[in-house]
Amino acid sequence: MRYKIVFAYDGTLFNGFQIQDTERTVQGEIEKAVAKVTSSNATIYASGRTDAGVHAKGQVAHFDVEFDISSNDMKSALNSTLPDDIFVRLCTRVSTEFHSRYNAKGKEYEYLINTGEYNPVLRNYVLQYCRELNVEKMQEALSYLVGEHDFSSFVTGLGESEKDTVRTIYEARVAAKGTKISVVLNGSGFLRYMVRGIVGTLIDVGRGKIEPSDIKKILEKKDRSYAGPNADACGLYLVSVRY
Amino acid sequence: MRYKIVFAYDGTLFNGFQIQDTERTVQGEIEKAVAKVTSSNATIYASGRTDAGVHAKGQVAHFDVEFDISSNDMKSALNSTLPDDIFVRLCTRVSTEFHSRYNAKGKEYEYLINTGEYNPVLRNYVLQYCRELNVEKMQEALSYLVGEHDFSSFVTGLGESEKDTVRTIYEARVAAKGTKISVVLNGSGFLRYMVRGIVGTLIDVGRGKIEPSDIKKILEKKDRSYAGPNADACGLYLVSVRY
Repeated sequence: MRYKIVFAYDGTLFNGFQIQDTERTVQGEIEKAVAKVTSSNATIYASGRTDAGVHAKGQVAHFDVEFDISSNDMKSALNSTLPDDIFVRLCTRVSTEFHSRYNAKGKEYEYLINTGEYNPVLRNYVLQYCRELNVEKMQEALSYLVGEHDFSSFVTGLGESEKDTVRTIYEARVAAKGTKISVVLNGSGFLRYMVRGIVGTLIDVGRGKIEPSDIKKILEKKDRSYAGPNADACGLYLVSVRY
Repeated sequence: MRYKIVFAYDGTLFNGFQIQDTERTVQGEIEKAVAKVTSSNATIYASGRTDAGVHAKGQVAHFDVEFDISSNDMKSALNSTLPDDIFVRLCTRVSTEFHSRYNAKGKEYEYLINTGEYNPVLRNYVLQYCRELNVEKMQEALSYLVGEHDFSSFVTGLGESEKDTVRTIYEARVAAKGTKISVVLNGSGFLRYMVRGIVGTLIDVGRGKIEPSDIKKILEKKDRSYAGPNADACGLYLVSVRY
């Protein structure tokens, strides 16, 4: 039986997504829960990894187990076994042709910035920038990223296998509500640190260090050294994966 | 010099407010910061304690130090010394006649409830009730609490010195925005676990276990055993102290 799960997690207390020997990871905790529920070991295949501190509202994974229960029962059993910083929102039985990573057609990420006073309660959940940002300029900057581009300039630490740095951003928008800014990026796929590199550069636009049109020039350089710093992990949320 | 501070904190990682020998407390961390900044020991006098896990947006305290800097410099120095789950929002020099506890005329508390799907990111910041609640009935129930009453029925573990259980609630309101319910109580003062006892009973009203008018009867019993359970600490915020 192949089960597909859509799940949320708070990235704060995880050392990233991918399983490691000694560190607490999202994959590790889910594999432990699946083993406990089904009394068998299964590998969790996710749509992709998230870095340490990054959160998810709708991460997707699948796993195969010889354990025949309804998807609703599987969801309940996993949620009562998982630690309280991971929650399975949906569970469905899928054909063995479904693969959470290879079948993913796109992803949406959201990045949250607090431009108001430092808020201790949100310290792990938004970037505490705590100064004003020009949202109109940020929106203009984002418009240069929409479409198919080589995103080399915004990417850090790519693995050997990731030579293709061309991705398509379908939609990029920024919205401010009071002192909370939300940046949403919807695209075919995102490379390592790509969203955080884009947001860090976008903040440079918002604070007036560079102009919106500079984003276009940075993109064309295909060189990471021209873009801004990577924005902190804590403001980043994987919102959904599209199939 | 007497300094008054208004500060916010995330109660999650504190063992309550009041200083203890071995546990991490809000008072303990602020006293450490004051000692580091001013090179002298001072006691922090707060408007009142908050229990373990309870948060604050606008707690108030004062302390006396022989250290003559501007209130703005004191604020900056404290914030760069304090851990990231406490933040001083305001600092002012006050007369030695000001006392954060004895001069307090009233307090406002807010309690947050999530009636939607469990959200791991909010697990320390709202009560994850995750079922529907009847907000109209809750508002009706709250109306019986407004005014001067003996709140014995909602109070737990009072100390020897706290024999006077009469308090005045000036305003009590509940509001729902999507799946987030906010209960605000504004009163002359609140006894130990009083807000959490009220909210726990209010939830019993919202889910239909008791009727709104039962709140009036419970109040009149002056007996804790008639009210509902104390709602979890994590949903509670001390919003402000009025002088």
